Order: sequence, then structure tokens, then C-alpha cells
Amino acid sequence: MQETQFVMVLWFVGIIAEAMTGALAAGRKRMDLFGVMIVGCATAIGGGTLRDVLLGNYPLIWIQHSQFLLAIIFASLVTVVVAPLMRYLTRLFLTIDALGLAVFSVIGAQKTLALGFGPSVAIVMGVITGVFGGVIRDILCNEIPLIFHKELYGIVSIVTASCYVILQMTDTNAWISLGVSLWLGFSLRLLAIRFSWSAPTFYYFDKAQ
Amino acid sequence: MQETQFVMVLWFVGIIAEAMTGALAAGRKRMDLFGVMIVGCATAIGGGTLRDVLLGNYPLIWIQHSQFLLAIIFASLVTVVVAPLMRYLTRLFLTIDALGLAVFSVIGAQKTLALGFGPSVAIVMGVITGVFGGVIRDILCNEIPLIFHKELYGIVSIVTASCYVILQMTDTNAWISLGVSLWLGFSLRLLAIRFSWSAPTFYYFDKAQ
Amino acid sequence: MQETQFVMVLWFVGIIAEAMTGALAAGRKRMDLFGVMIVGCATAIGGGTLRDVLLGNYPLIWIQHSQFLLAIIFASLVTVVVAPLMRYLTRLFLTIDALGLAVFSVIGAQKTLALGFGPSVAIVMGVITGVFGGVIRDILCNEIPLIFHKELYGIVSIVTASCYVILQMTDTNAWISLGVSLWLGFSLRLLAIRFSWSAPTFYYFDKAQ
Repeated sequence: MQETQFVMVLWFVGIIAEAMTGALAAGRKRMDLFGVMIVGCATAIGGGTLRDVLLGNYPLIWIQHSQFLLAIIFASLVTVVVAPLMRYLTRLFLTIDALGLAVFSVIGAQKTLALGFGPSVAIVMGVITGVFGGVIRDILCNEIPLIFHKELYGIVSIVTASCYVILQMTDTNAWISLGVSLWLGFSLRLLAIRFSWSAPTFYYFDKAQ
Repeated sequence: MQETQFVMVLWFVGIIAEAMTGALAAGRKRMDLFGVMIVGCATAIGGGTLRDVLLGNYPLIWIQHSQFLLAIIFASLVTVVVAPLMRYLTRLFLTIDALGLAVFSVIGAQKTLALGFGPSVAIVMGVITGVFGGVIRDILCNEIPLIFHKELYGIVSIVTASCYVILQMTDTNAWISLGVSLWLGFSLRLLAIRFSWSAPTFYYFDKAQ
Repeated sequence: MQETQFVMVLWFVGIIAEAMTGALAAGRKRMDLFGVMIVGCATAIGGGTLRDVLLGNYPLIWIQHSQFLLAIIFASLVTVVVAPLMRYLTRLFLTIDALGLAVFSVIGAQKTLALGFGPSVAIVMGVITGVFGGVIRDILCNEIPLIFHKELYGIVSIVTASCYVILQMTDTNAWISLGVSLWLGFSLRLLAIRFSWSAPTFYYFDKAQ
């Protein structure tokens, strides 16, 4: 098994997990099945899509391989059916979501480097891939994006993507770069949840507006 | 008259109707005339623009033919003037909007097929063209997109685009494909309004978030 | 000093000022430092990015020159530190923001003309560059975009971009086109703030929705 295939499997697990968080968010807003599908899809592929549109990297992966979109739609609708069980699976779910965050951040950086862009662009695109699915989900649900004010999430994405890019820049073996950055991102996110770590908050109040 | 010209006329009626729904939505939020213009434009051309950006299909039609944009801006501003009459035209308005939904869904699928993409991408792009103008309108107005929780709208778009794509795949005459799918989408939407049909709703509640 | 370098300097002042308004908006919503960075970046480069994506004009400037993105992130984080002073700098801030609005509107129109598009597309792209950073900021903060209902802002952008395009169409000297349109936009915006000028508001109420 090559490391690209391994990443591909993790990526697939990640988009399915993200589709399910999207479907649950739609359910919290009492959306219908069409809304569930759209929010599920936007959450799963929104980050990668924004990355590729910003890079001008066409065709988009889900347009070239539409079976992924069908899998995402299927996962969103299955979520509606299994939702009553979700309550008991919160821990499993958060774990898969943490894995997805790390995988997306690494893949975003990896793809950007492969297109010939520099390290700082790769880190930015890793973060966009990692977190913007959730941002678009929350915008569609008319909420302030959760990752802008809840526990460490975006910072985990920055650390993960930076770690991967630095290791790649120093010609580290592909499996090691991948393993170390995924492990770092995954464990950092789990620790953040466990100990409620969060980034410092900025509170600004003025009467002007 | 060729069937492409016929579609073009329906498309123009559709974007004008969508611009007017955008302008009215802006009015419900007490926006100024600049907001009315922007929301009107985004509603009328947002869906098609998103489709073409996702497909990497440049130049965008309203950039190539900016007279359409001027017509949309004009329609948005006229809506402000004739708004007091709108109350009495609700039925006409819903009818034109239903036509617009069917036309946009068919055109989105048609253009995507013409660019050489497969049937499933064509259906997805038909739906994006059909419904995302309204999604962007509601995001700009800080509302949960109406089509995610009100009566059958997105599903009508899926059915319409699928019907058109299937007919085209089976080498049906262009006029027949067009006529049948438009008629199906249009009547399905009117029936959904008349009988308050809606897609099943998903309600999920957890204390976790 | 060439007029392109002069514009470049004003543009840099503009993106820094916009990043700071984004960071303050994030602070009003009690976001964390990650949210501050994202909202700061989106406010500063969102308008220009949307313009280039709509025009299919790749690579994006902040991807080609990522040092600008670093400067924006730095400005966003510095804003958090100096926020207590901001109260006393409101007037300075509004002045720089007014300059930014004029500069962005002119640059957006200028770049679009340079790509070979016609005058009406150039005006539209000037307005998108001028105002959409603020629109994206407000969407990320879950607010109805301020510029859709507060004092003259979008109209100033339309006037500024139109003035520049008309002067360029009539072969006016580059420095004069630039100076006149910047001065017009800047002073119009300051007058609008000073005298609370606003565009007419559209209020529409119906029981239908």
C-alpha cells in the first residue's frame, strides 16, 4: 500500500464524517431532507472546493469523480436514520472528526505543494481545506462559525499543516512526514477537547456601531 | 424559432423574476437601494455563477454580456417602485418563480452536458443553478435558506434536472426533452405550493452543542 | 515614482485598514484569535479575491505574493493588542477606511480594464473590490451586511469606479484619472459620514412569508 492510497482512505473517512456533522447541524435547524443533503455536501467538500477555486485548480475532484458526491449524499441521509443512536456515539464521532481535521489539513497542504506553490501558500490551503467545510456549514445554518469561538480547532489545523510542510521541506520520508503530522494534529485536537483548551478570545466593545 | 432561443427567452424571464424576489427580500430587511441592487443581482445570477465557477467555465455569461446585469439592476430598482402592487400579484409572482426554477434547473443541466461532463454532474449543476440564487439571497439577508425548510423546492429542481438529463441521455428530441422536463418541474412546484407539499423534516436535538 | 507604485502603496494601506476593521468586528462577536485572523484576512482580501475568481484571473495576488497575507494576519493580531486605543482613533480609522474604499474601487476597475474587459464590467468589478470584503466580514459575523443599510458606502464605490472608468475611456492622463476619482470617492465618503447621508431605504412588508 502506497502512502497516497493510505491518505485516500483517511480522506474518504474524513468526508463521510464531515457529511454526518453537516447533516446533524441541519437537523438542529429542523431542515428538510434537501437541506440535509446540501449542508452535508457543503460541509464535506466545501473546504477542498474553496481551496481548488482559489488555486484555479480544475476540474474539482468531486466533479471528476462524482461517486464521492453520491457517497456524501448517502451518508447525509443515513445520518437522519441513525440520528437517535448519535447521542451514544458522541465520543466516537468527535474522534473521527479530529482525524478528519488532521487529514484534511495535511491533504490540503500536500496538494498545494504538488501544484508547485510555496510553503506558506501550502499551509494556508491546508487550513482552508481543514476548517472551511465547517465554516460554510455554519453560515448555511445561520450561525457564527463554531471554530471562530470554540475550543482549539483552527490552531490545530495551522500546526498540522505547518508540521507537514516543514517536514516535506526538509526532505523527510513521505510516510514519516505524514505519520508525524497526522499524529500531532489528531492528538492535539483530542487533548483540546479533553481539557477544554481554547485560543485566547478577543472581546471588543464600542458604542460607535 | 430554435429551442435554444426559446430557452433564452424563458431564462431572461427567470432572471428578472429572481431579481424581483431578491429585491423584495432586501425590502423585508429594510435595506437601502444599494443593498436592493446587490441582493437582486446575487439572487438572479448567483446560481449560474456558482455553477460556472465550480466548473471553471469562463468567461461568466453576465461578464460577457453585461446588458443582462443592467436589466437585472433595473428590474431590482423597478421592484421598489411597484412594491405596493406586489401584494396583489403574489399568485402571478409564484407562478413565474416556479417557471424560473424549472428553467434554471434545465439550463444548468444542459450547459453542463454541453461542456462534456457526465449525467450526474449535469444533475448536480442543474440543482445548483436552480436553487443557489435563493440560497445566496437568504445568506445575504441573514436568514436560514428558505429552500432548506419550506415546501418542495430543491426536490423539484432535482426531479426536473434528472428528467432532462435522462431524456437527453436517451437521445430524445431536444424540444420534447425540454418541454417534458419544464412542464414536469413547473407543475410539480405549483402542486407543491397548492397542497403545501414538503420534504420530510429532520429534527435533531442534543445537549452536546 | 510611477502612478502604479503610488496605487500599490495606497492599496497596502487599504488592506491593512480593512484587516483591522475585520479584527474589530471579530472582537465584537468575542471570537478567538483564529477567528480574528480569518475575519481579518477575509475582510482585507475578500473583495479582490471574489473579483479575480469571477474574472477567472489566476493566480490570485495573495497567493503569488504571500507576504501580503502575512502582513494582514500580523495587522489583525496587532489590532487585538491595540484595541483599547481604538476608541480614541475612531476618526482616524474612518478616514483610512474611506481612503481604502476609494482605492479599492479604483484598483478593481483598473485591473479589470487592464485584462481587456469593457467599461461596465470594470465598474461592477470596482464595486465588488470596494465593498465585498465588508460583506464577507459581516456574513462571517452573522450580521446583515452593514453596507446594505447604513450610510452611503456602496454608492460611493459606484461613483468612484464610474468616474475612473469614464476618465480612462476619454484618454485622460493616468495621474489625473487616479487623482480625481480617488479624491471624489474619499471626500464623498467623508461627507456621507459627516452629514449622515444615506441611500433611500426600501421597506417591504407582506404577510405571505
